[in-house]
Order: sequence, then C-alpha cells, then structure tokens
Amino acid sequence: MSLAALKTRRRQDYPYLLEYRTRWNDNDMYDHMNNSVYNFLFDSAVNSYLVERCGIHPPSSPQYGLAVHSHTDFLASIAYPAVAEVGVRVTKLGKSSVTYEVALFERGSDEVKAVGGFVHVFVERSTGRPPKDGMEPRLKEALDKIHLGPVTPPKEASKL
Amino acid sequence: MSLAALKTRRRQDYPYLLEYRTRWNDNDMYDHMNNSVYNFLFDSAVNSYLVERCGIHPPSSPQYGLAVHSHTDFLASIAYPAVAEVGVRVTKLGKSSVTYEVALFERGSDEVKAVGGFVHVFVERSTGRPPKDGMEPRLKEALDKIHLGPVTPPKEASKL
Amino acid sequence: MSLAALKTRRRQDYPYLLEYRTRWNDNDMYDHMNNSVYNFLFDSAVNSYLVERCGIHPPSSPQYGLAVHSHTDFLASIAYPAVAEVGVRVTKLGKSSVTYEVALFERGSDEVKAVGGFVHVFVERSTGRPPKDGMEPRLKEALDKIHLGPVTPPKEASKL
Amino acid sequence: MSLAALKTRRRQDYPYLLEYRTRWNDNDMYDHMNNSVYNFLFDSAVNSYLVERCGIHPPSSPQYGLAVHSHTDFLASIAYPAVAEVGVRVTKLGKSSVTYEVALFERGSDEVKAVGGFVHVFVERSTGRPPKDGMEPRLKEALDKIHLGPVTPPKEASKL
Repeated sequence: MSLAALKTRRRQDYPYLLEYRTRWNDNDMYDHMNNSVYNFLFDSAVNSYLVERCGIHPPSSPQYGLAVHSHTDFLASIAYPAVAEVGVRVTKLGKSSVTYEVALFERGSDEVKAVGGFVHVFVERSTGRPPKDGMEPRLKEALDKIHLGPVTPPKEASKL
Repeated sequence: MSLAALKTRRRQDYPYLLEYRTRWNDNDMYDHMNNSVYNFLFDSAVNSYLVERCGIHPPSSPQYGLAVHSHTDFLASIAYPAVAEVGVRVTKLGKSSVTYEVALFERGSDEVKAVGGFVHVFVERSTGRPPKDGMEPRLKEALDKIHLGPVTPPKEASKL
Repeated sequence: MSLAALKTRRRQDYPYLLEYRTRWNDNDMYDHMNNSVYNFLFDSAVNSYLVERCGIHPPSSPQYGLAVHSHTDFLASIAYPAVAEVGVRVTKLGKSSVTYEVALFERGSDEVKAVGGFVHVFVERSTGRPPKDGMEPRLKEALDKIHLGPVTPPKEASKL
Repeated sequence: MSLAALKTRRRQDYPYLLEYRTRWNDNDMYDHMNNSVYNFLFDSAVNSYLVERCGIHPPSSPQYGLAVHSHTDFLASIAYPAVAEVGVRVTKLGKSSVTYEVALFERGSDEVKAVGGFVHVFVERSTGRPPKDGMEPRLKEALDKIHLGPVTPPKEASKL
C-alpha cells in the first residue's frame, strides 16, 4: 500500500484503541521511541483485545495465536514522555488465521505515526498445529466484530 | 523499613502519580509482571517528573541524574493487561543527590503492590562528575516540591 | 519472497553475524521468544555494524539512520535460555538509504528461525532530513562491504 | 555493605558466570546501559541457573521462584555494544527462600560495574504459597553448589 494512503489513517479507522504511556527506555540514543518498541505496543494492543474481548487466557487457553508475519511503516516519530494510542482492526479473517492492521498515534496529535500489520495463526496448545476445525467460534465472533474487510484507501488519498 | 510499614503505603503518600498500561511482554512465563519491569516503570515516572517539572532535557541538559542505587520490595503481583499507577516522592535531597521513594499500584485496587527506592546523583554531562555547586537551582526547587522529608511509618502501621 | 525460499537461508548468506544470549523476559507467556524481541535483536545487530565498522557514534555523529520500514517472517520458534545468532547483509544501497536483510538462527541448529528486512534512511542530525550529498563516504563504503546485491532465491529453493 | 567492599568483587567470586551481549535499546538517552536493564540481566542469569542446573521448567514445574526483594549498587557504567558478563552466587539458603548475590562485569575489563542481590521465595504453582516441606530437594542441592555462605568482604577491602 502506498505511503500516501497510509498517511490518511485516522483514529476512527480503528474500532479498538488503547492508550500506552511511553517509558523512559522506549527512547533510544536518538531521543525518539525506538522502532522496535512499536511492535511491542502493537502486540500489546492486539493481545489485549484477545484477552479482554475474545476469551483468550494466555496461561491456559487450548488455542493461542502464533505470530507468523509482521511489518511496520514508520511515518513520523514519537518520543518519551508522550502518550501513545494504538488502534487495531482486522482486515482478513481466515479459518485459523487473522490479519490485523495496527496504527500508532500520539495523544494530542492527529497525524498517524506508524501503520503496521501482523498475522496470527491460531494453534492448539497441545500440538502447536492449527486446529482441524479452525479457531474457536467465540474467538472468531469477537474478531469478526472488528473485521472491516480488505482496507481500501479512502477517496481523499488519491489527492495526496 | 519493615514490610508491615511498607504495606500501609497509599496513593496519597505520593504527590506525583502516573498511569502506565502494562504491555504484553511485561508478563513473564509465570503470568505476572516480571520483577525487572517494576524498575522500568519507576525509572519512567521519576524521569517524567524530571522532564516535565524540573526542566531536564535528556539529549542536551548540562546536568543529568545517574542512578547509583535502587531497591524494590515486591508485596503483591500485578499482571498484563492491568493498568499500573506509579507514585513518586523525594525522601532525601542533598547537594547533588536525591533519594526517591517509588510505589506501584494497580488501577482499581487499594493495596500497594511494590515499594522501592532509588538514588540519583546529578553529574555534569561534560565531566561525568557531580557539579561543584551541586544541582541546578531550578531542579532542586522542583524536587523540593515533592520532598516529604524522611518517611516515618504511619501510626496505624504499629498495629499491624 | 516465498516462505520456501526464506527457509533456505543459511548462516553463510550473512557476512556479519553476532551472538545474542536470550534473556528471561524475552519469552512470553507461551514459553517462546516473543515476536517483538526479534526486532530488538535485528536492530542491535545492524546498529552494531554501524558502530563498529561504519564509524557511527550514536550520541554525536552528524548523520544517523532512521528506520522507515521493517518486516519479519517467523519460520520457527526459539526460547530462553537459548543463544540466538543474528546475521546481517545489505540488499540495496541507495544514495541515503540502505535496505538490510536480517536473519535469526539458534546456536546448535541449522534451520533459520526468522528472516526480516528493514530500511534505514540516513538523515542529518541537525535537520532530520536526508543529506543533500547522501550518506557519508566512509559509511557507504563500509555498508558496501556487506552489500550482496538483490538477493535471488538459491537454486535448490525451487525444489522445495 | 560498604561500596569499597563491593568494588573488590572479582569474576572468581561467582561460581556461575554468563555472557550477555548488550542490545541497542539497552542504552538510554545518556548513552550508557540503563540501570533497569541490569535487573533484566541479573534475572536472566539466575533463571538460567534454575533452568539449566536445578531442573526448573518454567511452564510446568510444580514450584517456582517469586522475587520478593531486589537491590543494586551501580559502581561504573557499561554501554552498548559491549558484552556484559553476569555472575551469580548464593549467599543464604533457607527452607523455601534463597538469597543471591549478582554482579555485572564487562568483557575486557577487570573492575566490577554493579553488584546486586535478590531474594526468591519458592512457591507452589497450584497455591502461590511456599510449600510446607520447603523447596524440592533437587533444587536445594543445586543451589547449595553455588552457596558460599554469608559473604564477608575480602581482607584487602579494608585498605581501600
């Protein structure tokens, strides 16, 4: 997807949004949040949705999500002690896999700082393999609630 | 200080208090926030005070705080995806050093989860040594605002 | 690039290789190294090359590398307390930008665990913008030493 | 214990010693390893001993170590991309608790950079409480192998 299209992302594009106060050690020696930390926040927001809305209990659930791919485009910087806001939506929902789009904003600023994606394959804890019947119905239903379908760039993107 | 006294700590004992949403990777394999993460949060709250209230600008300030000691007593656990609240007060303010007491709470719960302390010695960026005239007046004044003096256990602690 | 091609990556494909002992908190609640930690290790190996071979001194160099994109494919897991080995090669070297391919192995095992890529744009510290004349010659020369050109899948990949 | 005594610590004081390559994000904005990261490394070395020598299997062992106290004195700095070496010894071995002394060195340098301590109480996974009969015999035997008894400052410390 073009960077111009990514730059048009807004908070309202993400049905699930959480605030994360940045930490001292998030900044690296260049005085802005290190690029690897974005992934920690994306992972945290996605797993929070899984725990709080989808019935996943990490130490015991019979199925869990294994990350098989992640990517991020960094559009602008953010720095401690700012407060980050991380948005999540589902863009593809398969039998046992799910593709999320995630984005990072900064409290008090409109422009999106980074947009990423990652893919979970749900596997059975006992075997480490995808379940024959796919992910659990309760999980699928909850993911479907933030499933917006394949994301097309909004109209105004073409003017950028 | 006795653990019984530490357990009586309340949010109102700390004049500076910040919320930190826990992150997925804060939990370790025992499904609670790893003990080392507490230090990251304490460090983050203290440095936030230094940046937002004391005029410290990490990439350029002529003086900065060097940690020379830290300690923590862990009283109860907290786990992702809970929201932590970290309190800070100054218990000793020297010419170029400051001793903080820090505490961690969980949103929605009264009991304190951990109480720690750490000591910063302010040094000159150019030499790495404490400044001859001690810390900058602006810094000292701002630290003095949350300086409560040596902390004595509250009365009710003796009943524990 | 196809996953089958990525799975054929070997240590010898990477001219710069460093060992990183995993840490207790690298594992998440599923008892393997969290996917976000891979990015920390990739970032660490790339920056180590920049510091040790390319003359970059993070607190003072007039130019520094800003990450604008990263991605990772996770092929197999690794878990604390294993020792990771991270390889780096350059696959594209522009005027002020560089594309790295990075891979993670585990000491004692042949198969690659993850393959990723990321892109640095070198900017001037004073302006935050790419330098008019591109990256410094010393930097470019050192990056050119591990520049293998666009990476094509090895022949045997087609048999997978 | 006096700082003068701590400064006399040498690698040979620690029967268990592991190397940890520092990571890019270990450094904070002051260009040296952040003080909170020491705790991650201490925790990693101690747990490595528990996993590799004491039969602890974090996701399933019936007993596990809960940190109840930690402290660190920072004597000198270390910075990415240096390689750290972390030493562990046991200084007190109770029925269900163990006190470790930990120290951090830098590859290529004799002087100790930091000395810390922390206390684990072993609890039953099923109840979260210390086991009636104390820690498992296999665990206690393995910890006893690096139990040096209460540590007294070496003679030469008095000359410092």
